[in-house]
Amino acid sequence: MVVEVYSFEEAARTNMTKYDLGGKGYGLVEMTKLGLPVPPGIVITTKMCNEFFKNDKQIWPELKESILAHLNELQKKVGKRFDDPNSPLLVSVRSGAPFSMPGMMDTVLNLGINDKIVEALATKTGDRRFAYDTYRRFVQLFGKIVMGIPGEEFDKILERVKQEVGAKSDLDVKVDGWIEVVKRYKALIKEKTGKDLPQAPIEQLLMAVGAVFNSWWTQRAIEYRKIYKISDELGTAVNIVMMVYGNLDDRSGTGVAFTRDPSSGERKFYGEFLMRAQGEDVVAGIRTPLPVSKLKEMLPDAYATLENIAQKLETHFKDMQDIEFTVEGGKLYMLQTRTAKRTASAAVKIATDMVKEGLISKEEAVLRVEPDQLQRLLYKQIDSNAKVTPLVKGLPASPGAAVGKVVFTVDEARKARENKERIILVRPETTPEDIAGIAAADGVLTSRGGMTSHAAVVTRGMGKPCIVGAEGMKIEMSEGVFRAGNQTVRRGDIITIDGGSGSVFVGEVPLVEPTISGEVSTILGWADGLRRLGVRANADTPEMAAKARENGAAGIGLVRTERMFNAPERLEIVQKMILAGSVEERKKFLDQIEPMQKSDFKQIFRIMKGLPVTVRLLDFPLHEFLPKLEEILPKVAELRVTRKDNRQLEIDEKVLRRVMELKEYNPMMGQRGVRLSLMYPEIYEMQISAIFDAAAELIKEDGATAEIEIMISQVAEAEEFRKAREIVERKANEARTKFKVDVKYKVGTMIETPRAALTASDIAKYADFFSFGTNDLTQATFAFSRDDVEAKFIPFYVDNKILPFNPFETIDAGGVGRLIKIGATEGKRSKPGLKVGICGEHGGDPKSIEFLNETEVDYVSCSPYRVPVARLAAAQASIKHRVQGSSTA
Amino acid sequence: MVVEVYSFEEAARTNMTKYDLGGKGYGLVEMTKLGLPVPPGIVITTKMCNEFFKNDKQIWPELKESILAHLNELQKKVGKRFDDPNSPLLVSVRSGAPFSMPGMMDTVLNLGINDKIVEALATKTGDRRFAYDTYRRFVQLFGKIVMGIPGEEFDKILERVKQEVGAKSDLDVKVDGWIEVVKRYKALIKEKTGKDLPQAPIEQLLMAVGAVFNSWWTQRAIEYRKIYKISDELGTAVNIVMMVYGNLDDRSGTGVAFTRDPSSGERKFYGEFLMRAQGEDVVAGIRTPLPVSKLKEMLPDAYATLENIAQKLETHFKDMQDIEFTVEGGKLYMLQTRTAKRTASAAVKIATDMVKEGLISKEEAVLRVEPDQLQRLLYKQIDSNAKVTPLVKGLPASPGAAVGKVVFTVDEARKARENKERIILVRPETTPEDIAGIAAADGVLTSRGGMTSHAAVVTRGMGKPCIVGAEGMKIEMSEGVFRAGNQTVRRGDIITIDGGSGSVFVGEVPLVEPTISGEVSTILGWADGLRRLGVRANADTPEMAAKARENGAAGIGLVRTERMFNAPERLEIVQKMILAGSVEERKKFLDQIEPMQKSDFKQIFRIMKGLPVTVRLLDFPLHEFLPKLEEILPKVAELRVTRKDNRQLEIDEKVLRRVMELKEYNPMMGQRGVRLSLMYPEIYEMQISAIFDAAAELIKEDGATAEIEIMISQVAEAEEFRKAREIVERKANEARTKFKVDVKYKVGTMIETPRAALTASDIAKYADFFSFGTNDLTQATFAFSRDDVEAKFIPFYVDNKILPFNPFETIDAGGVGRLIKIGATEGKRSKPGLKVGICGEHGGDPKSIEFLNETEVDYVSCSPYRVPVARLAAAQASIKHRVQGSSTA
Repeated sequence: MVVEVYSFEEAARTNMTKYDLGGKGYGLVEMTKLGLPVPPGIVITTKMCNEFFKNDKQIWPELKESILAHLNELQKKVGKRFDDPNSPLLVSVRSGAPFSMPGMMDTVLNLGINDKIVEALATKTGDRRFAYDTYRRFVQLFGKIVMGIPGEEFDKILERVKQEVGAKSDLDVKVDGWIEVVKRYKALIKEKTGKDLPQAPIEQLLMAVGAVFNSWWTQRAIEYRKIYKISDELGTAVNIVMMVYGNLDDRSGTGVAFTRDPSSGERKFYGEFLMRAQGEDVVAGIRTPLPVSKLKEMLPDAYATLENIAQKLETHFKDMQDIEFTVEGGKLYMLQTRTAKRTASAAVKIATDMVKEGLISKEEAVLRVEPDQLQRLLYKQIDSNAKVTPLVKGLPASPGAAVGKVVFTVDEARKARENKERIILVRPETTPEDIAGIAAADGVLTSRGGMTSHAAVVTRGMGKPCIVGAEGMKIEMSEGVFRAGNQTVRRGDIITIDGGSGSVFVGEVPLVEPTISGEVSTILGWADGLRRLGVRANADTPEMAAKARENGAAGIGLVRTERMFNAPERLEIVQKMILAGSVEERKKFLDQIEPMQKSDFKQIFRIMKGLPVTVRLLDFPLHEFLPKLEEILPKVAELRVTRKDNRQLEIDEKVLRRVMELKEYNPMMGQRGVRLSLMYPEIYEMQISAIFDAAAELIKEDGATAEIEIMISQVAEAEEFRKAREIVERKANEARTKFKVDVKYKVGTMIETPRAALTASDIAKYADFFSFGTNDLTQATFAFSRDDVEAKFIPFYVDNKILPFNPFETIDAGGVGRLIKIGATEGKRSKPGLKVGICGEHGGDPKSIEFLNETEVDYVSCSPYRVPVARLAAAQASIKHRVQGSSTA
Repeated sequence: MVVEVYSFEEAARTNMTKYDLGGKGYGLVEMTKLGLPVPPGIVITTKMCNEFFKNDKQIWPELKESILAHLNELQKKVGKRFDDPNSPLLVSVRSGAPFSMPGMMDTVLNLGINDKIVEALATKTGDRRFAYDTYRRFVQLFGKIVMGIPGEEFDKILERVKQEVGAKSDLDVKVDGWIEVVKRYKALIKEKTGKDLPQAPIEQLLMAVGAVFNSWWTQRAIEYRKIYKISDELGTAVNIVMMVYGNLDDRSGTGVAFTRDPSSGERKFYGEFLMRAQGEDVVAGIRTPLPVSKLKEMLPDAYATLENIAQKLETHFKDMQDIEFTVEGGKLYMLQTRTAKRTASAAVKIATDMVKEGLISKEEAVLRVEPDQLQRLLYKQIDSNAKVTPLVKGLPASPGAAVGKVVFTVDEARKARENKERIILVRPETTPEDIAGIAAADGVLTSRGGMTSHAAVVTRGMGKPCIVGAEGMKIEMSEGVFRAGNQTVRRGDIITIDGGSGSVFVGEVPLVEPTISGEVSTILGWADGLRRLGVRANADTPEMAAKARENGAAGIGLVRTERMFNAPERLEIVQKMILAGSVEERKKFLDQIEPMQKSDFKQIFRIMKGLPVTVRLLDFPLHEFLPKLEEILPKVAELRVTRKDNRQLEIDEKVLRRVMELKEYNPMMGQRGVRLSLMYPEIYEMQISAIFDAAAELIKEDGATAEIEIMISQVAEAEEFRKAREIVERKANEARTKFKVDVKYKVGTMIETPRAALTASDIAKYADFFSFGTNDLTQATFAFSRDDVEAKFIPFYVDNKILPFNPFETIDAGGVGRLIKIGATEGKRSKPGLKVGICGEHGGDPKSIEFLNETEVDYVSCSPYRVPVARLAAAQASIKHRVQGSSTA
């Protein structure tokens, strides 16, 4: 079997990366390369971790041999030896995966100490308390991490002894106390494992190495990797580093520092340290660490060296570093350096600053800001300092956080709104009839429905926080309460919802306002210059259109017109239209709706003047605008028995009949979009008239309009589209005759059925543009009804690795993505110049954008609130594409 | 412009086909080639028809010139001339499309006659009555066909004159009567068209030619072409043929004949004729024609020539001919020959006989029988002689006809069955709870649902007639009646349903029994030797399995196991299982179901011994086994108000809660098949145990079993399938341990989501076989929910040519077919030897089979009753493939 063990110096002469050496090892080796004061050490590569598991979790002879050989060299170099009372070598054993991973074994310090060496150390340093303090630290870490005894057991013993000796803190414990602690720790190990604490340092070392490897497959590590999509194949490296002692004397200490402020991004050296301490003391919170600036006063030389090194590291890595250091008797040692985590606003500031400082290019700066970080800057957030536990969790349907009083009905919502109260609308699920309530609310919470349920779609469009499908809560509308666990929340109680995480909290949780700084627009400006993909917004209202323009959208890629039918004052007319017995009667009611829709279009076109606006004609099936069967059916059944109100019964029976007629087994695949409209062309006709009238009026009044793009949905066959296009052209000619104004327009189709993608070359013959409806396309390609599967089994699928991610969030490249490629490529081949976009929710997802950047898609369209994210993600995709492109060129 | 006009002799020197010459012209030209006695004539090709329409429906100068030139030659040849009293030429003008088409203009006889010529004819023949009879025939046909006056107007005049002269039949009308008729006909023409009957023969001729062309685009012709899928591009030819007179004297007559009996297929010369008659008299039914054998006695020479010619024609065309002839003064003329239409049983008999006679090959014989004809031999049919009008029409869900009393409930059905009554179950739609009623009924009629509704699928499986979605009827269950139009049909009334056409009749319509002859199996035997595609059957019960084997299936391609859950005595246990609160409780009920399913499997495996049986594990969502929301919701609402039965209310409320929990917005894309079973593996486990236990017991008892193929449905992702396969393998191992018998098995998947086809290469890694579920695949590819769209808009789509056909009947090559090709090809590339079938209903559709024959699909599976059709269609596809293949080679 291969063996890969290196001293830091050996490794420094190779080009190994963090994938070989792990993050920690890579930092140490790089610092060694730079000639910085790193304690000598050995690194065992990540590959050895995988070999270890192939070898039945045993360290094989060759590996052992190589470790020992390298140890020997190390001993020679530093003049210290394992188990040598005259000059004892102690080491730390540190894990180091390519990505930092909580849940894995971290570090065993002071390895090499034993009953003999502790006394030698006491003699050599003349500090017996130091020696036993060191020993007890080792026993505890080794017992816990390597031998698997729960940490609390050690804590209990320590507390007991502290009580017995009357010590308030660890600092009050004298040498005898530590001796007692060590004794009891060893007894604990014997009791729990049936084995003694190993005394031979080599045995300790090999056990620790095995423990690091094993920690790769602990449950917590596996789960962490799943959440952060880290491959299980990577493995962890092991670092064996000579101990230096921050707890040696008064000129010793240990600390962590950042080359800039990780919270604000400000360019200042930032960190904390403790004198007379070892690593874990700084984070343990027992003693309050000092700001690193104090070190300047206490150990000015060490501080100067540290500041200088920090600067060097930042220049070397071209990014903010998070470093660990120890000062032993006045001498500085570097124990770690890595790219520092930072807040969203710090990320943006640092990226722009570093460009100004000439440290990185604009491309690099654009890559430095995570799209999710950027998003976080654009919504109100739960204050990360708030320590709160959610009452219940649901699906995170629309991001941002909101606090408000619980209301259950549209009327309550409106009333509270008039009183300027903040409110959360709580419903089992919402329907078009609830629109006014949603509009009035600060946030929405439903116990049913998935990520494309009515509530989810409407609130995302409005940029309003929303949680759906919180199945752990039971709403009792009649009592005006909802229950979760054993808690009851009443109408008027304050709750907080976090639409980004799906968490619901009782009471008011502090929120932080979005902090949009000038640097955000700087970064986005750079991004705009670097991206291939266009970015538009999905916007259904003038407000959303304004937000889209404000956020830098290049147009509107999707105006859903359903809202123009179910706005509160219109729904009644629409219902009458649906109940109409003849075409003539239907047209009568459509004539009443037309001027309202014209006014909607006019507002949107005015705001978007000069930019394209894609209007999707009516897509929903008609029954969406009628009451639900579950509502009307018991109502009629009850009235039939009680005969309380025969007039109402008659009305309701008529509605019920129509609901039953229009009822569909699978409405998602029923009479929607183009299918509905070819049979009831008068509905499309009304909408098209409204569009052209609005545009013609605007041209007369303002001299300009938006660029009109009319979009037909649900197309599965070229002929469907061709027939629908005829209707558009007929109405366009009518408008031209009427207004004597030539309104330019395009007619295109959504590609949202698999067949549309597969027959794109036929459809393209008649189309000016395509827009992939990736929500519906994903549903049909998987045969997954999003409303049904997203709460019911997608989480189970992702947890069980049946799917790598939720395909409604990120485009499934192998299935849906393949259809997009077929559709875009064959569509453009059939009609050169065909414009191709996507308008499903994937348009705002960075991973999906990265995929789409590699296809012939021209633009994405997403929620106005996601536009900045999409602009950034599109730029990142282009940059990565160029890098990959050039590497293969 | 091109001109294509030929004399029959000229045309006989070319290789033009019926696509150029039309069917009639082709027959005449071929007979001319063979030297048979055909009256001289001219043919104008089909191409001229298309040119005519391009030229604004005008005969252009060059065409007119060519017609006149050919007419001149004809006149020279026969020594007769238009408008020449000494030797007048009369002609017939006959249309001739490539395929015989009712609804188009047929024939104008005696063209060339006018006020002058009629007198000349009278003088020349010495028979004035004959002359005026001939004239009135011409005026009537020309007035009706060329000048567009409704035929009834002429009939009315004729009847009036007959009354006036006291004639009972046309034969009683004397010369003055005909003179009066001609006078009044001409007046009618003047009145209706404002024009006189043209007297110039050339004018008559050119008008008649234009009328033939125009008849190509009459409404009836267009509709006929749509129904029979004849291209609009073909156009019609025109034949101008010298008249010969079957009405000239006592040695004259006219008739039609078949070279074999078109009804039985028997090899005997068969036909009818009338003495002293012209063509239309034979079919008009005024005089009773004589059998052609009588001609032998009356005109032995003419008869001998005719019989000889008939034999020659059959040998020449290698198929039964339908011929028209006229004898003029003892001389025989052939006026038409074409391939004869025949009954289904005649088609089979003739095809097999002709092989025995050495006239055609087996391949040709197999191509001679239409799959639909074969199907008609296998079901009871409405007697084609019955003159009946349907009360209402629905979707033809399952073929065959049935007569029975109307029943509305399962109980009524069972009771009537016990009394040995024939019954038709009438329901708004059926559910699994109605199974016993369906089983008891002779046929099923529903007012809702599509071609995959419960009723449709179940009855097709049972080979029982069924009509679904008859939306024109309203069922009032409470009154025990249904209404359609203004008729009311009551419980117990007799109705007849024709599942092949979707027609419902009031009362008993006579039916004819299926006539399966030995020749059917001969043809099918030849077909089996010629086809590439295997044919299996979909069969859910032992009865269906037996039928499958009887009909020559090579195995079972789909056992749906839902019936094993919803059989009447099991449904209650299954419902308890679904209502169970824990896995343990669920398993308790599953344990009760397992022995029942084992017994089902054992029966099927025994019947299919040695052949493969593909068992699809549970596919339906659980709510399918609970009452419908529309039933339980008003029940609970009512009980809540009345409080009549609180115990029942409690039970119903529990059921309602579970129904609401399991309710899905789009169940077709919800928690079904593999998705359900990965979350509730105990259901699959029970089924797999039952399968292996059954097979192991059979091996022990009989020494053999069927070949077990276990199939997983709804797979969209390879990992889903891999996980399901693990369950199968675990249970297989358990069975092996338990029985010490090694049951061989395969595990495969349905490919019925677009994503499964698109990722077939991944899925194939774990699969032994694929079976395309083309019903669901079509639904998802179009995003058409069959139950919703098939009644609602597919008919509209087909009528308006948006779709060329219903894609649930015939595979849509461009979309669904493309996915099948991708799936089959990439699946086999990933795993050579992968077996690929289809088990959707397209498996029994000849057009779909022709498409599948060109893919890498290995077999089709269809209803046991369609197996013979599929065997035949698969052979025809192979033969056509070879012919096409060789023509391109």
